[in-house]
Amino acid sequence: MIGVDVGGTKILAGLVDRAGSILRTVEHDTPTDSEEAILAGIAAAIRVLGDGEPQAIGIGVPCNLDPVTGIAYRATNLPLDDVDLGRWARNEFTLAVGVENDGNAATLAEWRFGAGRGARDLVMLTLGTGIGGGLILDGRLYRGWAELGHVVVDADGPPCQGSCHGHGHLEGVASGEAAGRAARELYGADGDARMLVERARAGDEAAIAALEHIGRLLGVAVGSFVNMFNPDVVVVGGGFGAAAGELVLEPARDTARREAIQPADAGVTIVPAELGGHAGLIGAALVGFEALDGAR
Amino acid sequence: MIGVDVGGTKILAGLVDRAGSILRTVEHDTPTDSEEAILAGIAAAIRVLGDGEPQAIGIGVPCNLDPVTGIAYRATNLPLDDVDLGRWARNEFTLAVGVENDGNAATLAEWRFGAGRGARDLVMLTLGTGIGGGLILDGRLYRGWAELGHVVVDADGPPCQGSCHGHGHLEGVASGEAAGRAARELYGADGDARMLVERARAGDEAAIAALEHIGRLLGVAVGSFVNMFNPDVVVVGGGFGAAAGELVLEPARDTARREAIQPADAGVTIVPAELGGHAGLIGAALVGFEALDGAR
Repeated sequence: MIGVDVGGTKILAGLVDRAGSILRTVEHDTPTDSEEAILAGIAAAIRVLGDGEPQAIGIGVPCNLDPVTGIAYRATNLPLDDVDLGRWARNEFTLAVGVENDGNAATLAEWRFGAGRGARDLVMLTLGTGIGGGLILDGRLYRGWAELGHVVVDADGPPCQGSCHGHGHLEGVASGEAAGRAARELYGADGDARMLVERARAGDEAAIAALEHIGRLLGVAVGSFVNMFNPDVVVVGGGFGAAAGELVLEPARDTARREAIQPADAGVTIVPAELGGHAGLIGAALVGFEALDGAR
Repeated sequence: MIGVDVGGTKILAGLVDRAGSILRTVEHDTPTDSEEAILAGIAAAIRVLGDGEPQAIGIGVPCNLDPVTGIAYRATNLPLDDVDLGRWARNEFTLAVGVENDGNAATLAEWRFGAGRGARDLVMLTLGTGIGGGLILDGRLYRGWAELGHVVVDADGPPCQGSCHGHGHLEGVASGEAAGRAARELYGADGDARMLVERARAGDEAAIAALEHIGRLLGVAVGSFVNMFNPDVVVVGGGFGAAAGELVLEPARDTARREAIQPADAGVTIVPAELGGHAGLIGAALVGFEALDGAR
């Protein structure tokens, strides 16, 4: 199976087997000029991997997908809008093709092969520059929006960035970008999320407090998710999430247990993701296998 | 079909047909002494209606249900915990029995016969003394917790009441109870939610502002739900919700559109529920029909 994880800066494609093992990968910069350039970039990555006669293709994109038509729209930071990626790829490669939102794909991967194995209900949050996520509900992937980074945690909070006109959304207060902002307040213009985590690990009290604050706001959102879905596990991934680790997860657990209703409060489980930067790729491949099995 | 809506103060039971029409009802106080007394009260209501040889029974309860075993636990304000209502009723009446959380049942009813007809994805919120709700996702009832009144809208908000140890939950700031608190602040110890709405309708600026504030916080939560589920419609019911109507729905729409991400923001639709106090009863009957059809 070929999986393709289309990110805002990189296209990561790979050959992935049914056990979730990655046999080979190829990565290149995402062309950001135009839709045509992105499609050409996806096609090139697939062709590099295509020697072994793949059975199907799965593509994860930073887009919302129309639940009925499958048309992708509103890519984050990319000129991808109102495009039927499935139809395009089927025409281009004459193979079964599955397309899914990248956060949903990564959630599927962590559920099947990562930190969420065996869960019936699962919430995944990816703390990167922004915050994405996904939901497993009643033992299957929820294929809707699941823009979990855009739940409000603080009605009077700071405005969101970019095209979002909301306030106090989780992404605005607990993402790598928010950590970078905290670092710049503490250490000047050179500060970034990485520095904040490094300083905290070195014992800097202000950095520890800033990450604890981020963790508490993460925990507020997790509390809301627990009250909605009573998940077996909440999986936290993403580059910033992985780097900060327990510096944010521990205060998040504490706050989430406070905000969760009984009897879910005692059972709140927040764990780090296990598949790292490969979750999106493996998840895309899983979506490809679904398309293949459904097409048979 | 006999539907039974078990509330904290009243048990409302009725004969309901497949078109959602209520043919006959019986209502009496909920015995709150013990689990046995509640079960006896449910059984008595069913027996009053049972002359017409009902095919099955549906029961809505203010409990969370274990998704696997169906066991009901943690009733709000009632001594119902860790009880298999389905097994009890099947033994008692030798009929097919369906059991569901009351908020989920009401959501099912508004979706099938009320303000949410035809929706693929729907969020329902019932603004009563507390706030309950339910979700239709991908064209079917989400049967999990869906404790939508316990999403956080304000991390620094007031503590929840009763057994909930959370802060700034929707229920704490936008329920009939919250409206009553606002009324008491304005008008003294006699103030309640009904008075607040009456004064607002009479043009009292302070009452209008208090309800607008409640509506804005409702809109914050709706914004979060839109970003998670991109629903076709958000249905607002419950006694306080129905009484306040546009006094809260209009500011809620405005705020929800601000908090919703593109392109969902323009499409946010918040409408009043249509089935009033009968939604829970009709929904319970629908759950009974499901049990009957599944048992065949």
